[in-house]
Parts: sequence; C-alpha cells; structure tokens
Amino acid sequence: MSIKERLHALRELMYKKNIQAYIVVTDDFHSSEYVGKYFKVREYLSGFTGSAGTLVVLKDRAALWTDGRYFIQAEEQLKGSSIELMKSGQPNVPDITEYLYSSLNEGDTIGFDGRTVNNAFACKLIEALRDKSITLSYQVDLADEIWTDRPPLSKEPVWELDVKYTGLSKEEKLDSIREKMAETGADILLLTALDEIAWLLNLRGNDIACTPVFLAYMIIEKSSATLCVHKEILNDEMIQQLENDGISLADYNDFYSLISETDNDKIVQLDGNTANYCVIKSIPENTKIIDNQSPVVLMKAIKTPAEMNNIRAAHIKDGMAVTRFIYWLKHNTDKENITELSAAEKLEQFRAENGTYLGPSFAPIIAYGAHGAIVHYEATEKTNVRMEPKGLCLTDTGGHYLEGTTDITRTIALGKLTQEEKTAFTLVLKGHLNLAAAKFKYGICGENLDYLARHPLWEHGLDFNHSTGHGVGYLLSVHEGPQRIYWNASANPKHYILEEGMIISNEPGYYLEDHFGIRHENLVLVRKGKKNSYGQFMYLENLTMVPFDRDAIDTALLNSDEREWLNAYHKKVFDTISPYLNGAELEWLKKVTEEIK
Amino acid sequence: MSIKERLHALRELMYKKNIQAYIVVTDDFHSSEYVGKYFKVREYLSGFTGSAGTLVVLKDRAALWTDGRYFIQAEEQLKGSSIELMKSGQPNVPDITEYLYSSLNEGDTIGFDGRTVNNAFACKLIEALRDKSITLSYQVDLADEIWTDRPPLSKEPVWELDVKYTGLSKEEKLDSIREKMAETGADILLLTALDEIAWLLNLRGNDIACTPVFLAYMIIEKSSATLCVHKEILNDEMIQQLENDGISLADYNDFYSLISETDNDKIVQLDGNTANYCVIKSIPENTKIIDNQSPVVLMKAIKTPAEMNNIRAAHIKDGMAVTRFIYWLKHNTDKENITELSAAEKLEQFRAENGTYLGPSFAPIIAYGAHGAIVHYEATEKTNVRMEPKGLCLTDTGGHYLEGTTDITRTIALGKLTQEEKTAFTLVLKGHLNLAAAKFKYGICGENLDYLARHPLWEHGLDFNHSTGHGVGYLLSVHEGPQRIYWNASANPKHYILEEGMIISNEPGYYLEDHFGIRHENLVLVRKGKKNSYGQFMYLENLTMVPFDRDAIDTALLNSDEREWLNAYHKKVFDTISPYLNGAELEWLKKVTEEIK
Repeated sequence: MSIKERLHALRELMYKKNIQAYIVVTDDFHSSEYVGKYFKVREYLSGFTGSAGTLVVLKDRAALWTDGRYFIQAEEQLKGSSIELMKSGQPNVPDITEYLYSSLNEGDTIGFDGRTVNNAFACKLIEALRDKSITLSYQVDLADEIWTDRPPLSKEPVWELDVKYTGLSKEEKLDSIREKMAETGADILLLTALDEIAWLLNLRGNDIACTPVFLAYMIIEKSSATLCVHKEILNDEMIQQLENDGISLADYNDFYSLISETDNDKIVQLDGNTANYCVIKSIPENTKIIDNQSPVVLMKAIKTPAEMNNIRAAHIKDGMAVTRFIYWLKHNTDKENITELSAAEKLEQFRAENGTYLGPSFAPIIAYGAHGAIVHYEATEKTNVRMEPKGLCLTDTGGHYLEGTTDITRTIALGKLTQEEKTAFTLVLKGHLNLAAAKFKYGICGENLDYLARHPLWEHGLDFNHSTGHGVGYLLSVHEGPQRIYWNASANPKHYILEEGMIISNEPGYYLEDHFGIRHENLVLVRKGKKNSYGQFMYLENLTMVPFDRDAIDTALLNSDEREWLNAYHKKVFDTISPYLNGAELEWLKKVTEEIK
Repeated sequence: MSIKERLHALRELMYKKNIQAYIVVTDDFHSSEYVGKYFKVREYLSGFTGSAGTLVVLKDRAALWTDGRYFIQAEEQLKGSSIELMKSGQPNVPDITEYLYSSLNEGDTIGFDGRTVNNAFACKLIEALRDKSITLSYQVDLADEIWTDRPPLSKEPVWELDVKYTGLSKEEKLDSIREKMAETGADILLLTALDEIAWLLNLRGNDIACTPVFLAYMIIEKSSATLCVHKEILNDEMIQQLENDGISLADYNDFYSLISETDNDKIVQLDGNTANYCVIKSIPENTKIIDNQSPVVLMKAIKTPAEMNNIRAAHIKDGMAVTRFIYWLKHNTDKENITELSAAEKLEQFRAENGTYLGPSFAPIIAYGAHGAIVHYEATEKTNVRMEPKGLCLTDTGGHYLEGTTDITRTIALGKLTQEEKTAFTLVLKGHLNLAAAKFKYGICGENLDYLARHPLWEHGLDFNHSTGHGVGYLLSVHEGPQRIYWNASANPKHYILEEGMIISNEPGYYLEDHFGIRHENLVLVRKGKKNSYGQFMYLENLTMVPFDRDAIDTALLNSDEREWLNAYHKKVFDTISPYLNGAELEWLKKVTEEIK
C-alpha cells in the first residue's frame, strides 16, 4: 500500500469509530528513544523515518511535526504523501494543540493509543481543547487493523551485566531507590522506562534498536518488588536470582491490571515523562500520585567509579577503531568504490575487532557532501552515494561495549576543500575546543556553558539548530538526561547541575543546506578539580580519543589558547592510541597529531 | 547612646509590647536601594552602614544578615555590638526564618514596620513559622520611640526632566502602561517604587541618597490617575501639567486610606517586590490582586533611542573626568598627601566641571590597598588612609548627568606591584574583555554569559563573590533590574532576555582579604547586530570610555584575541576622549592607549 492508501484505510476506520483526529507519536509503551519494529506506526503511516515526529490525521488533511534535525529529511520523505510538514519551533508554525484547536469542532473525538502517549501530552491536549468539549479515545490502536504484516512484539533473551562493569549490585541500587522513596513518602514506585529497569537490575536485552534493554515494567514497594516481563526472555538462573533479591515476576501484559488493584491508601510515585497515559488511567482514581522525575534518572546519569574506568577503556577501543577507519577512508576514496553504506560497514568491522563490542549505539550517520547538512541523515540504498577524493564526510557513529557506550562525530576531508568549508570546520572546532577547556565552579549547569561552543559561529552570524550536548548512558541509551548543554531557557525548565561522573557530549556543528555539514563530537566526563575557599572547581575530561582532521583546519583562525588546547588533545590521543597501531597507520597518526605551531 | 544601649532600649519596648522578635530591614516604604536618612533605622540600631542587611533582635541576642559584598565590613562594624554576623548564603549559616524558627516559642509575636517590609518577606515568615502560630505585629515602628533625634521625612523640590532627555512624554508612557494593564486585565495599577514613578512622570527629586527621585505613590486607573505626594515639593506649573494629563494629587500619607476604599469588584495590580506589606494589607480583603512585576520595570530598562544617544554623551563627559583623575592620581601620590577621601573629592571636582553633572550616582568607593578587598568599602574619617606610590587603588564611582547615569570601576597602579597583583589584575581583565566581546543570538540571558567573565579566574581556582552585571537606570537608580549577569540558577528564578537598549555593567573582580582588591567595570549597551536566517544577532557596545591601567597588565597572560580586543578598546577610548584633553594629560592618554604588541 502507498502512504496515501494507508491514510485512506485509517480514515475509513476513523469514520467508523467516530474519531475526527487520530494522533500517532513515535514512542513505544515506555517512551524509549528508539523503538522496536512493532512500534514503527508513525513511519508506516507517513513514510517519514526520522527518530522524532508526530503525525496528526484529520478527515481531510494530515500533518507531521518534527524538529530541526529532520526538516530537510522530512521534506523529502513526505513528498507526494499529502502530509504537510510542520517545522516545530519555527515562527508561524502552529503546535499540535493549536492545529487541533483550529481544526476540530465542539464535541469531536481525538483517538490515539494511550500506551504510546505520555501523560503530559494528554494533559496538554485536554487543557488546550477544554472549551471544545473534546473526547479522548485513548485505547484505540487503529494502525493495528491496517498494518497486516506488523512485526510482533520483540522477546529477545536477557543477559546479565557483571558487577565489575556496573560497580553496584542490584541490591545496592534497590536500597538507594527505597531511600529516595522514603524521602518522597512513596509506598509504591512504578518504573516504566526500559533503561531504568535494565540499569537497576544489571540486566540487558535486545528488544529495542540500538539500546540493549528489554520490554518490562517494574513495581517497587518498600519490602517487595514485581518485574512485569515476558518470562520466556529470562533464564532459570536469572529468575532464581531475582527471587533471591525479593523481586517476583509477573507477565509483561499484566502490569496494567496489577496497578489497577492498588490500595487506595497507598501513595504511588511515577515519572510522567515516561509513564504512559494508560498507566496513569489504570491507577484507581482516588489514589495519591506523586509525579516526580524517577530517582533512577540521576542515579544512572552519575557514573560509578567502576563505570568511569570502564568507559575510559571503551573509548580507547573505540578510538582505535575510528582512527583506523579515518586513515582508511582518507587513503582509499580515490582507489576503491566507497559509498556511505559501505563505509559504515567498514567502520563496523573495525569496531567488531574488539572482543567486548556489542553493536552500534545508534544508526550510523555517514553523510558525504551535501548529505552532511541533513543533521540526522541515515543513508539508504536510495540515497547512498559514492565518495570522491574531495569535500567533507561527516561521520557520527557510536558503539556499545561491555565497558560502556561511545558516540563520536568526526568530519573528514577526503581531498580538496573550499575556503568556506575550512572556515566553517575551524569555527566549529574553536567552539568544541573552548567548551572542552571549560573550568568552572560546582553549581554550573549546561546552559551556563553553551555559549562557549557557539560563540565562534555567532561571531560570524552563523549557528546550528540543535543542542550542544546530551548525556550518555552506560550500555543503555546513547541519549539520556537529565543534563544537557543548551542555552535556550525554554529548553531548560529545570536546572541540572553538572555533577562529577556525568558524561555529556560536546558536539557543536554547522550545516549549509545543499552543500556540506560539519560536526565535531567528543564525549566528556564531568570531574572534580581542586577545592578551596572559593568552592569546588570542576573540569571536563575528554573521553573520546580520535584526532581532528588537520587537513580541514585553517590554523590562522585559532587563537593562542585554542592552538594549545588542540595540540594537548592531539598529544593525548597519540599517547593513548599509538600503542595499538602499527606501520602506516601509526606513521600517519604521528603526523596528524603533531603540534600545530 | 552606644549600640548596646540602643538595643537595650529596644528590648524594653519589645517587652512592654509583648514582642519576642523585632526585625529591622534596610528598606524605606518603597523598597528603594538607597534610603533617606529618616529610614536608616538598621544602621542606627546596629552600627553597620552597608547598603544591604537585616537585623533581628531577640530578647537575649541579636543577629545581622548581609551578603558577600559586606562580610568584611560588617565584621568590623559589628565588633563589640553584641550582634552576631550572619553571612548570607554561606554553608551552615541559617537564614532569617530558620533562625526565628529555632529561637521562638509557640504563640510568640514578631514585630516590624510593615511599610518597610515587602509582601514576599512577610509571606515567607508566615509560611516558615506556620506551625508555631506566630503573630505578626506589622504596624510598629519601635525605633521611632528610641531615636529621639531622628531626621524628618525628606521633602525636597521636584524638577522636570525634558523630553529631549527621556525620548518619551509622560502621556506616551501612561498610554503604554494602560495597554499593559489591559493585557493583564487590571482596573487599577499601584506604582510603589520611586524610580518607576519618576520615570513615568519625567520628574526627578532629591529625597533619596544618590537617586534623584521623590517620595510618592501612584494609583493608575483606566481613565484617571492619582499621585500621592507631599504637595509642597511640586511647583504650580507641575501641578497644572499633571492635572492636564489627567493626574490628580493626593497627600503622600493618604495613599493607604485611598487604596483601602477600593471597590471590591475592581482588579488591583501591584508588584510584590516593591509594594510593602502594609500596601497589601490595606487593600480590602476580597479584592482580586494581581501580583506581577510592574510593567514599568521592563519599559525603563529598555532605553529609548534618545536615552541611548544621551547616555553615550554622558559617558564621554564622565570618561574625560575619570581619565583626568587617573592621570592626576598616578602622578601625585609621591608629591601630595592624597587620601581616599581627598581623592574622592578630587574626582568629584573633575566631574563637576561638566555643566550637566548633578552628583554621584552612589557613594564613591576609593579603596587603597587592603581596603580594595572590602567589596563595597566606603572610606570614613576613621578608615581613611594616605595613598603611597605603590600598590593598587580600586575606584568604583559614578555620576548622574542630565544625559544619564554612569558607573565605572578602574583599579589603578600607584607604583610597584607584586606579581600576584599583576596576575590577578590581568585575569580579571581577561574576563572583562571576554564578556565585552560577546556576540550572541537574541534570546540569550545574563546567566548564559557569566562564564565569560569568570573563567580566567576559575581556571586558576579563584572567583569573586558578587554578580558580574546589573542594569543601570537613566538618571534613576544606578542598580536596576530586571536583567543581570550571574550564572547561579537560584539567583535567576526568572530568565530575562538581554533586549536591545538595556544597559548592563560588566564588572568582574577579585579580592584577596587583607591584601588588595581588583575590579574592572564598564557599562555596556545591548545592541542588535545583523539578522539573517539563523536569527537576530546581538552584541554589547561599550559605553564607558576610560583606559585600563597598562602598568598593571601582565601582557603575557593575554591570548591573541584578548590583546586585539584591548587594543581596539583603547583606540576607541583615545579617539573619543582625546579631543577634550590637552598637554601632559593628552600625551599621557596617547601613551597609555598605545597598541600592546
């Protein structure tokens, strides 16, 4: 079926069920960033493959909202679909509630699968449409009736992550969580985010693309806990161990009926950012609900000393693989037929040579030339191009290792560059270096630092349309909160102090539509420096160990501090990676990490 | 009477009136920053002369809270007073409510003059002490009975500020305010801050130290307005003009009874940050009150084009005076007996040579050597020292001109410096230069930029204990909001975008107790730069035109950008100020603004 035919079938069902607007979001039942194939309903109905977007279908038109990362991609993929692209956050673009308000009549019904929508979203709808007396029909999954070859829910086996990697046992983690429950006075804590459950139990799975987690819900009480999971994905030993730790099992699908039996006098805590609307609606009506950020969010963001050490090791392995990949790419585009897809495969091979490598932490972005300007470009057979020995190739990739998760972007000169490319490359690098060199006092949040990464571009009247930094999980989601680096006050309703042990990306970029894209991304670890009467000082430790391509740097644009920082970083990269390289690769690394005078 | 005797007298009155805790704040009835002599009750009762501080007197002990600017000064001035110093915001220092909570018994009474306390403060007391059933006795002014020679309320004549200075007539301003009232749905707007009333009426006065405003309240309705003022301070022409503009007069003291007669069905808007507690308590109980930031706050913060032009002229006049002062100071400490007080007089003479100069915008800080480490040091006959031809002199002064208000700090080398002094001087200068050079996108707030001013110190494990920037009024208060530059999230509960036309100070510092203090302060004007598809770019225009003392700069610590910025600033200073200087002063200016290679 074409997209138009799918939309037609959907509208027929909407008509039958008296639904005037049907909303399809991108989430699974757990607000996961990436979702299993079963959940790709928005992609099925719209053709848009980006990782963020919401489709609204009315009886006579349809629109899809997505953010700045995907404007160019969505524009292309929606062509001929009859779906209008709504560029979120741009001037004069209505948001979803405004669109619905102006489209719907009094008494109309909005339909959606309430398990894929969070409570905040549903409340926003109710609030915005209050004076239209709209009904929310939140237990309909219309796509299920249209999508005849829909893949089943994933039930991949779970495996255990040894405490030598995590640094804390699940008992210790459960104790900490119960301490936090005592602070908020909660009798029952519902965990609904998959990475939180995987973190807590030191278990990993394979039910979600690029995120080694498994489908589950968890109910934690003061002296008992229940894991709702497809039991067949656990082995006997795991089941025994969970029981030993006081964690009983229930079926994945029984979660909603279990919480619907909650005693009225119990206080239930959940996190409205990840608990779906059906979770909220399943809790008996007079139960007191505390809607707080899950205590696990901050716990897993602050890495244990063991995790910190492991992550350094992961980055050495990853740095070696990416460095070898860059050498190979720069020396072979004139010799071999190298495409975006084949280059991604090659990099995957380099990574896979490491015994503890598990797979990519997100779909690799290998974007040559103009594709680099599409911020979250993902090459397909249709878009795939051959690389030539000229211009820039943006490579944003990452891996999961037992020792942790990596995420790195290097922009590589494959041959001759224009001055515009070199200038842009260097301005972005200046921003990256300035942020990496940040020395600050404890208490600073990401929004206090973002200027560092942007000012070289801002000075030239340029900018990039995404945040500068995101948190990174330990063998969990490559994007996690709560910390981020973004200046915009409206993007930071809460202020998260950069705590020692947090990992955050440093990834300024610049994108010139139809021409080229540049991004320089390292992961950094927030560290304590000296403490004195002025306070606790902090700094950022570079984890990523891969040289920046000096062929693309206009060294005249670097000030004396920036030159010094770049030289120190390159020396560190050489000292760290060189023991693992030989021959021509080693010679090359030596050359490209030499001091810039 | 000694401080101890005054406290004893106060405690006798407290005992008579059954008051267990008496609070004395620093404010007048209008939350003015500086207050008239009538209002200096906290100083009278404690001996502490700083511009911020709250005294709490219990029957057996007393404590005074003040902020980082005044820790050193307060420590000295409270010696022997029996009053304990509470360093606000420092670890393990209780705040006032915590102190009261742990000191008072159930059913006790707290007394204060409710006209000097804002509503937020009273609400905080009520909230914090809720479970102690404390009574607030808010209509007592016990000090009035002790302070027998208390000066009367000031009633200085009002004068008019021509529209060529303000750029907007009072009718235009009143129209804008009424538009804002329509937006919030207010029938009545109470203006209680003196600078807001002076701004609105294009009138100035002389009832407050260093702030050319007059005692008044204002009641603005949709088609009428009432100014509550001591009528004798207005001349007949002004009274006529006010009447022509639909503004009737009432006595200053009648404000409370006027608002107590408000119709129940009217919606009253006020600003709880400046409206005192008695104002709130005077409004009939069932009246709907909108407690919003006054619309005047943002209006007066964003200068009119006329004000911007005038302010540039004011800074040229002020720059000339301060430059001549620096020349004089650097060349005469070895010849004359120059003290902190005599130097302040000399600077006042240089300023007064300008015909439009009206007086200082705050008490001058001329702090030699170790005095420089006392952030808001104000020399007295007792502390006054003679300057020697060595070390640093910190001079933070400002003036009111018809063309606007200035505020400048220069730290001046009077002779040989230690390397520590030079290093600190240069690190603070680096921060100042980095902030001055900020280029940013519209939407940025002060907290996004503060890192720029602090990072050279933070890199060395140093810091300063005050905000980096404050707004400045036009011939009003030298400190005004809402914008500020301070990284600390808790100091920025609201985010104020830096709007074109705002003036803000750029004043990083460094203070080494018992040794020296450094601060470099310019005022800058927020300006729009180019606008393109990336957004509206903004920059800061330096208003202050006075060289930094190159004798104190360790040029090796400046990076290539900083050198360029300093040279460009010094060239601008020379080009702007040199036409007004002659002879040796001109020769000297040329030398000290020469390019640093």
